[in-house]
Amino acid sequence: MKIKSKFGPKFQEFEIGNIVFLAKNKPLKLQNGSEISNFPLAYQTYGKLNKDKSNAILICHALTGDQYLSSPNPVTNKKGWWDFMVGSKKPIDTDKYFVICSNIIGGCMGSWGPKEVDPATKKPYAMDFPVVTIFDMVEAQNLLIEHFEINKLCAVIGGSTGGMQALAWSILYPQKVGIVVPIASSYHHSPQNIAFHEVGRQAIMADPNWQGGQYIVKKTYPAKGLAVARMTAHITYMSQNALQKKFGRNLQDKDSLAFQLGKEFEVESYLHHQGFSFVNRFDANSYLYITKAVDYFDLESDFDGKLAKAFINFSQKNNDGKFCLISFSDDWLFPSDDMKKIAKSLIACGIEVSAINIESSAGHDSFLIENEPLKQTIASLLKK
Amino acid sequence: MKIKSKFGPKFQEFEIGNIVFLAKNKPLKLQNGSEISNFPLAYQTYGKLNKDKSNAILICHALTGDQYLSSPNPVTNKKGWWDFMVGSKKPIDTDKYFVICSNIIGGCMGSWGPKEVDPATKKPYAMDFPVVTIFDMVEAQNLLIEHFEINKLCAVIGGSTGGMQALAWSILYPQKVGIVVPIASSYHHSPQNIAFHEVGRQAIMADPNWQGGQYIVKKTYPAKGLAVARMTAHITYMSQNALQKKFGRNLQDKDSLAFQLGKEFEVESYLHHQGFSFVNRFDANSYLYITKAVDYFDLESDFDGKLAKAFINFSQKNNDGKFCLISFSDDWLFPSDDMKKIAKSLIACGIEVSAINIESSAGHDSFLIENEPLKQTIASLLKK
Repeated sequence: MKIKSKFGPKFQEFEIGNIVFLAKNKPLKLQNGSEISNFPLAYQTYGKLNKDKSNAILICHALTGDQYLSSPNPVTNKKGWWDFMVGSKKPIDTDKYFVICSNIIGGCMGSWGPKEVDPATKKPYAMDFPVVTIFDMVEAQNLLIEHFEINKLCAVIGGSTGGMQALAWSILYPQKVGIVVPIASSYHHSPQNIAFHEVGRQAIMADPNWQGGQYIVKKTYPAKGLAVARMTAHITYMSQNALQKKFGRNLQDKDSLAFQLGKEFEVESYLHHQGFSFVNRFDANSYLYITKAVDYFDLESDFDGKLAKAFINFSQKNNDGKFCLISFSDDWLFPSDDMKKIAKSLIACGIEVSAINIESSAGHDSFLIENEPLKQTIASLLKK
Repeated sequence: MKIKSKFGPKFQEFEIGNIVFLAKNKPLKLQNGSEISNFPLAYQTYGKLNKDKSNAILICHALTGDQYLSSPNPVTNKKGWWDFMVGSKKPIDTDKYFVICSNIIGGCMGSWGPKEVDPATKKPYAMDFPVVTIFDMVEAQNLLIEHFEINKLCAVIGGSTGGMQALAWSILYPQKVGIVVPIASSYHHSPQNIAFHEVGRQAIMADPNWQGGQYIVKKTYPAKGLAVARMTAHITYMSQNALQKKFGRNLQDKDSLAFQLGKEFEVESYLHHQGFSFVNRFDANSYLYITKAVDYFDLESDFDGKLAKAFINFSQKNNDGKFCLISFSDDWLFPSDDMKKIAKSLIACGIEVSAINIESSAGHDSFLIENEPLKQTIASLLKK
């Protein structure tokens, strides 16, 4: 099904792609206790599902990512965010695999989120949208997998927040996943990460155009607040080294300091660009909700302070299942030490695990940047 | 001289303490080319200046610090920010030394800054205030030292931005400083640091109450924007470890997750407190100007890309001068590697230098927190 959808500050219409309505017969219970039914989930698929439905791979997107893996994004008109990874003869080979990626619930690319219309009020949910969690996102994805009548996924792969979803899959549906591949991710969101998210949320809510979340109805948009939120977050996606290499203290369009308050350094212009281009492709309330979902993620506290407990279910219900953990050396948002801790917990449960820490100066965003070690790791993992 | 001054969002009046008007006969030329005369500088002193005026120490305050070293701050009514360091029988012993600290120009605690009234227009300078630099701040401090008829300071000591001022003293007036003590500081502001400052400035300017800088005249105040700026900056002042130790993922006033969008984690409440208490003691335009001044600081580019060149003047004009460089292990805003680079440059110039990297989990703010290694280092330095 293809529909048109209002979107973002300009409320432009665009082709959303595939949407399926899920939980039609049996409502889905969310972690906060509420139940939802007949909710939309937007997705893209690449490759063909084979007859015995045994060649499916689910890819979970990151915080502000979307379902457009290797096909053009209809909002930005740019190529898919993992185009170098997914496609014919690529590491995740669509000649061999049926690749699924769905927009997370709480998101804004067609799935059930705060900008969607609440059937009860005929208005966008806005702040009446419930606080959803990473586990809720995975439950929605599971309904999509059931919709395809797939019993087991070859792999669940995801970077950053997508990696959290992959971990949640191994906990909720251990028998349904062959290989779990969290990339540049963690078992929890650290207090520093929560702090950065909270600053972003405060920036959005401080913008008077946010209107208590009612900006769609009031035909305004908290563009400045959302841009500040994105700028803050973007700093955490890059390493100190990457910023130094890419910009140093270079000036933008000038030979010498102007002694003016405007932006002068290249790094400032880059941040502005990141902030304001984001505003054109993302919904502010979605940003509030999905950052909160990530902040809530903490497998350690979910399992009585013992991370290994999180994986006991997997070890018992999935005899041939395994994990591949991928981290990046210069990622300070999700440090490789977090992955080490996951690896130790998996080993304690007797689960097969391979772990690789890829040398990269790009920081957290390394998983979005084409690099050979990442491609080779994924390719060899899926060839076995 | 004691005066009353309007201040901050509430525009309350308070006793500013000592103010002197400088550059009365000869204007001070700023780095941007403009000249200023008869401008106010607010300061505090502790201890007594001896007869031959040889016992003076200048302490330079950090970004949002002030001149209230070890006497109560008239705005917050809290004790001075370096009360554990400065006083009778303390590491910087006021029984022995005459200690001076002045509010930086561009600041908002009585010195010449954007909230002061422009004699030409009879209105606050606001955005007509010139972009000042760390070197300009030091030139103003030098006029204060001349006002006291002090030829040579025993030491210039400063943390963070104050450390940049100490370095600038060694460059502008090498013959006037005995010991140069930069603490938790650097020879430049890194691209990552510039990025965080720019986010803060954008947050302030995105606040409609900022009113293009004219909030004093319009009787508004960009409190939300300034609070977001402070929250962002405050994350950089603490280490990942400090946040983990202090808050972890503890919930504020709750036993379990509330599934609501408001602040829930202790670290969020702490940030709110930091953000909004700052608003009551600081001027938003000052924040714009002094963050810009810090961003401009780069001794390497000032000296043809060769940091050692910055200290040649000192090595030639100050035979018995020396440096003591103090960094903190967990400071990611001004990493200890930056201090190592300064040390190497000083050694290359044949300048006596001691350097200590203090183990501390508190991060950048370590210099503001009472700790024995810091106290002992400063005490032993001043006893020699």
